[in-house]
Amino acid sequence: MAVEIERKFLVTDPPSEDVLGAGVPYRQGYLAGEGDVEARIRIGPDDAWITVKAGRGVSRTEVQVAIPVAEAEALWPHTAGRRLEKVRFFVPLEGGTAEVDRYADELDGLWTVEVEFDSEEASAAFTPPAWFGVELTDIEGWSNAALARRGRPADPPS
Amino acid sequence: MAVEIERKFLVTDPPSEDVLGAGVPYRQGYLAGEGDVEARIRIGPDDAWITVKAGRGVSRTEVQVAIPVAEAEALWPHTAGRRLEKVRFFVPLEGGTAEVDRYADELDGLWTVEVEFDSEEASAAFTPPAWFGVELTDIEGWSNAALARRGRPADPPS
Repeated sequence: MAVEIERKFLVTDPPSEDVLGAGVPYRQGYLAGEGDVEARIRIGPDDAWITVKAGRGVSRTEVQVAIPVAEAEALWPHTAGRRLEKVRFFVPLEGGTAEVDRYADELDGLWTVEVEFDSEEASAAFTPPAWFGVELTDIEGWSNAALARRGRPADPPS
Repeated sequence: MAVEIERKFLVTDPPSEDVLGAGVPYRQGYLAGEGDVEARIRIGPDDAWITVKAGRGVSRTEVQVAIPVAEAEALWPHTAGRRLEKVRFFVPLEGGTAEVDRYADELDGLWTVEVEFDSEEASAAFTPPAWFGVELTDIEGWSNAALARRGRPADPPS
């Protein structure tokens, strides 16, 4: 699937630990960004991937492919200044899964949630649960690529 | 292998067709470049890859991974203005293989050759055959990423 249909929201009141369940720690380093394209590596406890995202908005082209962790580690030094760390939790939602991210380091205290959809219709019809905050989809400065480069924006989106 | 040890040369007097053998046509589109990192897709007749190169000089970090051709084609529109097409020929050399590239379109008439080595010692000890021209390794403007973006430099390197 080369198209990702996704919406992203701020989380100011995260679910309790028993709702979140066990999370998976990820490091993400942004290799290069140009125009509407970002290439990044993601390294988890046992796996690593190269991901390319292109385009803007709810529907983006996304290609993700697993690579050996050793190769990701060889690329990691080349992402200095363009990194973030987070723990990802998978919370079941009606009709899908909420991917909740608790950021670490300079982004400590920030939580976001992403939901992926099968169609733009399903995306448009989605009613966020009460614990979802303001929507961040396509808001300047709130993509992970931007957060990794420039940190958390001073002003929350309104 | 995450390290690529490679030297690149201009070819002004290409080998004859029987030396070159059958070539393989490739399209390369540069997804994004930042700092010393380039991410590109390469699409051949039956295969496609994402390649990330990082660092400068003879020894660079390189990670290449196959992806479905359909996914590469989905990313292709996002490389507009950062593309090149070439036919690659594989010519046996003492101790390795010369990868000879005949460029097409705006780069028509340009030929280069690359040789990959197992070690920096082997790279330094390499004596180019008579048909190799001036060395292009790490010369500004002559990387494929630069050729794809800005075309052939006005002045040949000296």
